[in-house]
Parts: sequence; C-alpha cells; structure tokens
Amino acid sequence: MGKKSGKKKVKAPKVTIGVVDTMFARYDMGQAACDELATCDGYGTKFTVVAQTVPGFKDLAVAAKNLIEKNGCDIVVALGMPGSAPIDKQCAHEAAQGLMQAQLMTSTPILEVFVHEDEAEDPKVLASVFENRSRKHARNAYWMLFEPDQLRRRAGQGVRQGFADAGPLQLK
Amino acid sequence: MGKKSGKKKVKAPKVTIGVVDTMFARYDMGQAACDELATCDGYGTKFTVVAQTVPGFKDLAVAAKNLIEKNGCDIVVALGMPGSAPIDKQCAHEAAQGLMQAQLMTSTPILEVFVHEDEAEDPKVLASVFENRSRKHARNAYWMLFEPDQLRRRAGQGVRQGFADAGPLQLK
Amino acid sequence: MGKKSGKKKVKAPKVTIGVVDTMFARYDMGQAACDELATCDGYGTKFTVVAQTVPGFKDLAVAAKNLIEKNGCDIVVALGMPGSAPIDKQCAHEAAQGLMQAQLMTSTPILEVFVHEDEAEDPKVLASVFENRSRKHARNAYWMLFEPDQLRRRAGQGVRQGFADAGPLQLK
Amino acid sequence: MGKKSGKKKVKAPKVTIGVVDTMFARYDMGQAACDELATCDGYGTKFTVVAQTVPGFKDLAVAAKNLIEKNGCDIVVALGMPGSAPIDKQCAHEAAQGLMQAQLMTSTPILEVFVHEDEAEDPKVLASVFENRSRKHARNAYWMLFEPDQLRRRAGQGVRQGFADAGPLQLK
Amino acid sequence: MGKKSGKKKVKAPKVTIGVVDTMFARYDMGQAACDELATCDGYGTKFTVVAQTVPGFKDLAVAAKNLIEKNGCDIVVALGMPGSAPIDKQCAHEAAQGLMQAQLMTSTPILEVFVHEDEAEDPKVLASVFENRSRKHARNAYWMLFEPDQLRRRAGQGVRQGFADAGPLQLK
Repeated sequence: MGKKSGKKKVKAPKVTIGVVDTMFARYDMGQAACDELATCDGYGTKFTVVAQTVPGFKDLAVAAKNLIEKNGCDIVVALGMPGSAPIDKQCAHEAAQGLMQAQLMTSTPILEVFVHEDEAEDPKVLASVFENRSRKHARNAYWMLFEPDQLRRRAGQGVRQGFADAGPLQLK
Repeated sequence: MGKKSGKKKVKAPKVTIGVVDTMFARYDMGQAACDELATCDGYGTKFTVVAQTVPGFKDLAVAAKNLIEKNGCDIVVALGMPGSAPIDKQCAHEAAQGLMQAQLMTSTPILEVFVHEDEAEDPKVLASVFENRSRKHARNAYWMLFEPDQLRRRAGQGVRQGFADAGPLQLK
Repeated sequence: MGKKSGKKKVKAPKVTIGVVDTMFARYDMGQAACDELATCDGYGTKFTVVAQTVPGFKDLAVAAKNLIEKNGCDIVVALGMPGSAPIDKQCAHEAAQGLMQAQLMTSTPILEVFVHEDEAEDPKVLASVFENRSRKHARNAYWMLFEPDQLRRRAGQGVRQGFADAGPLQLK
Repeated sequence: MGKKSGKKKVKAPKVTIGVVDTMFARYDMGQAACDELATCDGYGTKFTVVAQTVPGFKDLAVAAKNLIEKNGCDIVVALGMPGSAPIDKQCAHEAAQGLMQAQLMTSTPILEVFVHEDEAEDPKVLASVFENRSRKHARNAYWMLFEPDQLRRRAGQGVRQGFADAGPLQLK
Repeated sequence: MGKKSGKKKVKAPKVTIGVVDTMFARYDMGQAACDELATCDGYGTKFTVVAQTVPGFKDLAVAAKNLIEKNGCDIVVALGMPGSAPIDKQCAHEAAQGLMQAQLMTSTPILEVFVHEDEAEDPKVLASVFENRSRKHARNAYWMLFEPDQLRRRAGQGVRQGFADAGPLQLK
C-alpha cells in the first residue's frame, strides 16, 4: 500500500510523481492518489512518489512548482476541495489559475483534482467521489508519463472522474 | 485520411501543425481536425501534423506549449468541450486563460476550439457543431501559416465556425 | 486612402503602427483604423502601417505581440467584436486579458478597440459605433506616438469613442 | 501648485513619483494627485513628479510600467474611472489585473486609484470623492517612500480614501 | 510579546518570516500574526520576523514579493480584509491573484489571510475571526518551515482557520 513519504526523494528511479494535498479538504485525497499509484506497474522501480500537504488549495500551486523544480517531479497531482459558498468558487478560481500558471512556468503537467463540497449531498456519496476522482487522476498521471496511448484511444469519449462516463455523441 | 500519429515528429517538412484534444469531450474533435488538415494542399510534404490527447481541457495549455517548444509546432489547434454547469464555465475560463498565456509565452498562435455542451440540445446537431468547428479552425490554422490573404479578405465579415456566418453590417 | 498592406514592412520610416482585426467582427474595423491613419500627418513618411487579420478576438493578443516583436511596431491597434451572449462576455474578458499581458511583456501600448454587438440595436447605429471608435482609437495611437500633449490636455474630460463625450464633473 | 510636466524627467532629485491618468475619467485626477504631492515636504528637491495621460484605464498598466522602467519612477499613482455598466466592471477588472502584473514585473508599487462612476449619485459628491481619493493616495505614495511609519501606525485602523474612515473593531 | 520591527532585518537567524498587513483592515491582523509567531519555539534565535504595513490589500502582493526578494523572507503571511460590497469581492479577487503570482514568481509560499467583512454580523465575533485566523495562519507558516509533519498528519481533516474545523468525511 502506498505510504506518503514526505519530501524525501529516492534517487534510484529516474521518474518522480508528485502528490500535493491540503489540510482543508474533508477527505484524504493525497492518500487515495498515493494508494492508486502504488498499484501501477513499476511503482518504486520505474517511478517513485513524493507527497506533501499544505494548508489550503491556494497553497497548492507554489508547492507543486517546487515539487517540480526542487524535487524533480515529472508530473504533479494537486488535490483540493473548494467549499460550497460563492466566495469559495472565487477562491477555487484563483487556486486553479495558479495551478495553470505553475504548469506553464515549468512546462510540466499538474493535474488539478478538485472535488467541490456541493457535488453531492450524501456524505458517503461525496466521499466516494473524492476517492474515485483522486485515484483516476493519479492513474491519468501515470498514463501521461508511461502509456500515452491509453489517453489517445479514449479521445472524445466523454471520460469522467468521480462519476460515470458521459460517453460520446454520434454525428449520424 | 489523416491519422493521429502520436508525438512522433517527421523531420522532412519544415512546418508542423499540432493538434491536442481531450478524453473529456464527447466528440473526437482531434480526429475531425486531423481529417481536415489531411485535405489541405501540401499535407505530408509542405507540412506535417502531430497529435496528442490529454485528460481534460485544463490540460490543453501546457500540452500545447510543449508541442510548440519540444515538438517544434508552428501553430496548435487546441480542442475541448466545456460542460453546461456554471462551474464548467469557470473551468472553461481557466482553460482559456492558460491557452492565452501559452501563446504569449511562445509567441505562437494556439487556436482555441471549444464547443460548449449546451450550444445545442439535439445531440446530432451538437455533433455537427463539433465536426464543423473543429474542421474550420483546422483550416484557419492552415491559412494562418500558408494563405494569410484568405483571412484578410474576410476581415469584418462576421465569419463563424460551427454555425452559419453572421455576415457584415452596413454603415448606410 | 489607407490600404491594408499585409505583413510587408516598409523600412524607410522609423515608426510603425500595427493594426490587427478579425474575421469574426461584423464590420471591417481594421479598414476604418487604416483609413484614419492615412489622414494623419506624416503617413508613409513619418510612419507606416502594417495590418493583419486573425480568425477571432482571442487570436489578437499573440498577433499583436508578434507585430511588435517581429514587425517592429511601436504601437498596435487591436480591433474586435464580442458577441452578446453571456459566454461572449467571458471570452471578451480572456481576449482583453491577453492584450493586457502582451502589452506588459513587450512594454508597448496595444489599444484594445472592442465594440460589443449589443451596444446598439439598430444595425446602422452599431455600424457607426464601429466606424467611429475604430477611427478615434487609431487617432489616439497616433497622438500617443507623436502628440502626447493632445492626450494630456484632455485629462479627466470624460472623452469617449463610439458615442458622444461624457464631459467632466465640477467640484463646485 | 504642482504642474504636470509631461515625460521630461528632472535629473537632480534621486527619487521620482509617477502619476498617470486618463482622458476617459470625468475628473482631472492626475492634477489632484500632483497638487497633493506639491504640498509634500521635499517636493522638487527630495523628489520630483512625472505625469502622463493615456486614453482609458486599460492603458494605465503599460504606461505605469514604462514610467518605472524608462522614466525611473520609484512608485506610480495610477488613476482612472470605471463606468457604471456591468461591462465596465469587467473592464475595471482587466485594468486592475494589469496594474497588479506591472507591479510584480517591476517589483515596484503602483497605487491603483479607481473611482467608480456609481459611487455617488450627486455629481458634486462624486467630484469630491475623486479629489479626496486622488490626493490621499498621492500622500500614501509619498509615505511609502519617505515615511513608512505613517502606514505602520495606522495598521488595521479601517483607513479609507474618498469617504470617511471605517475605524477599527474591538475584540472585547 | 511580538513587536512589529519595521523593515529592519536581523542577520543572525538564517530564517525570516515576513508579515504584511493593511491600513484598510478593521483589525490589526499583523499584530495578531506577530504575537503568535512570538510564541513559537526558536523565535528570535531560529527565526526572526519582519513586518510591514501597506495602504490596502491590492498593495500586499508587491510588498510580499519585495519582502522575499529584498528582505530575504522564506515565507510571508499576507493579511487583509475585503469589504462586503460586490465590487469588493472583485477587488479581493485581484489582490488574491497578485499574491498567487508573487508566490510563483519567487517560488516561495505566501499565506493569504483574508477575513471578509461580511463573515460575521456581530463585530465581536468578527474581531475574533480576525484574531484566530491571523494567528492560525502564522502558526501554519511556522509549521511549513520547521514542522511539515504537523501539516501532513492533518491532511484531509477539514481543518479551518477563524471558525471551528469541519472535520473529515467517511467513505463507509
């Protein structure tokens, strides 16, 4: 089972996947992402994982940038939970803009994994969205590094994380 | 017929057009763009195409930037589908801002081709908007590189992609 | 009468004014701007004009940046027409942010000349707004380069383009 | 009385304060700022003022950046008036974002002094808001350069410009 | 008790925490943050604090950047109070975007500590939110530098500042 190892970076495998999450979120998204990565082929040999926790989702961007620039991560999964008030949407916007900028400044993908607190009313359903989306995007990060064909063959297929796929539309 | 060739870059033709699309979209916009480019004069000789798929539209910007900086693309067509919920509009805004920044950081045009899921209720009409807009913007990319006069002679003519042209207004 | 001359840059005059417009707009704003510049003192001798057309207003920013960096423009007039739907306002925001960033990256003014499709219901009135605003901002570009006192003496005077001036307020 | 001196920079005093305003505003905010600075200790000896006028508030950011980078300003007061329509708020947002970016790119403070046209219905009241806010922020610029303790001792005091101070809250 | 020491930087301790607040806020947030830091282990020996006050929250970003680049701060706590009018939310957005950019440009965390004036109606309750949130984020800054495990063990626990913690959700 994948365990968060803090900022210590194992030197042997050349490829590193960063995972950064928050104290603010109401589910341990980082652990879910780390658990998924631990099931991927080559975990610990082909690639390693470095994990970090920050206070809230506005702190994700600079942490992700530093995971790339200082810890040598080749991709980062950034996980957070925007609250349900209108001001929370605005804050989510700022956090997302920061993650976008961090990607462009480092020319490195950072997968934004946000679960909005109002996506489901039932706490158990919401927890399952947290678990599923965190895991699926961790898998996407792995695919982007090692199996890009997995993505290409799903182009335009209405793929979703957290809920069921929407599926493709037909021209005729 | 244009086939997506992954990230392999053919060296012979000097000019490369990038195409990047998403798993999230409910139509294979990238294929439509590639198909259109395959009908353009000089396909495979004067210019070549490189295609890539990412998870969602927020992942387009850094992918487009890397297509330009690492794969040598001279222009990129970036295709995605924002959903219909209010939060999807906000996310589309972030994705679009990223594409804007990527253009300015690389001094290279990236044509943003977004089809909003709520642009048409009928799935077949929506599919045709996907197909038409993706193709027309792929053609625009070709014109920008090889036939800028095609654009200049249509200045202020109310040209549209996906739906019929709006046409020009008359002063008197 | 000012004719659009494409991206060919005449070397003799030291100062160049860029004009970039779109196929999407429903009025030939670029021609109006070029016509106004052709009436300015020193046209063709003191300064020259370079014009370009792009698909839509989100393509203006990188084009303006390249007119400055690659064509040596000292100022650029960027003309576009946002549509009237809510999503068009969001897109106008993105286009405007891009023009802002392009100015700051090049330390060169780019005059954003946007006419919103819903500024007037009567097509003839709207056309006159297009013509008037495009011309007035082309004149502003000329003043900024050659006659900054024209601007300074109008400070705080409620000057408008497209519609009548609002005029100044009095303290007592 | 402070007179706007255009872009000519006096070399003798080491410190320069920039003032940039617009033709669009309905009050001569730049003059009010210059008048206030002329009453500050050391005007013309310890520091000098350079003033410029641009068409509208979206043109302030690049002008402020150039006042810093080309005219050697140590701080800039940027004054403008957003109109009262919804689209004006969006434009104000773009102008403000530009001023923010210009500060960060130059590591130099630019005080944004915006008076919204709908802050008061009575034109005379509105004019007094223009005059008061412009002067107070000009004074703030002076304090930031020469008397930072004036700011520190007012920390958390609910200080306002244009209207009366809101005052501090008490914990018990 | 922590006293604001202005921009003078003590050289002996290698680590410096910056605190920047505003005249506009209606509570002395900077003092609350400094007070909390003064209770942290190693205050004055392991780390030192540098504090500064600016006019309003839009002035925080460039001040924080300069605290990092010119005063050598390793982290900054930036404290402000957005008002309750709609335009204040937009201004808060601009201020927050600036703080985000400043972090990314310096690769250094800046903790945004905003208390919205409408978070509580009772002035005493609001004052306690100011005090509590300012102190908790000052403590977070300390943890990020010296005790990152404090954050990691709280990952996904629904931790809040200013109000009670929300707590974690359970999958089953």
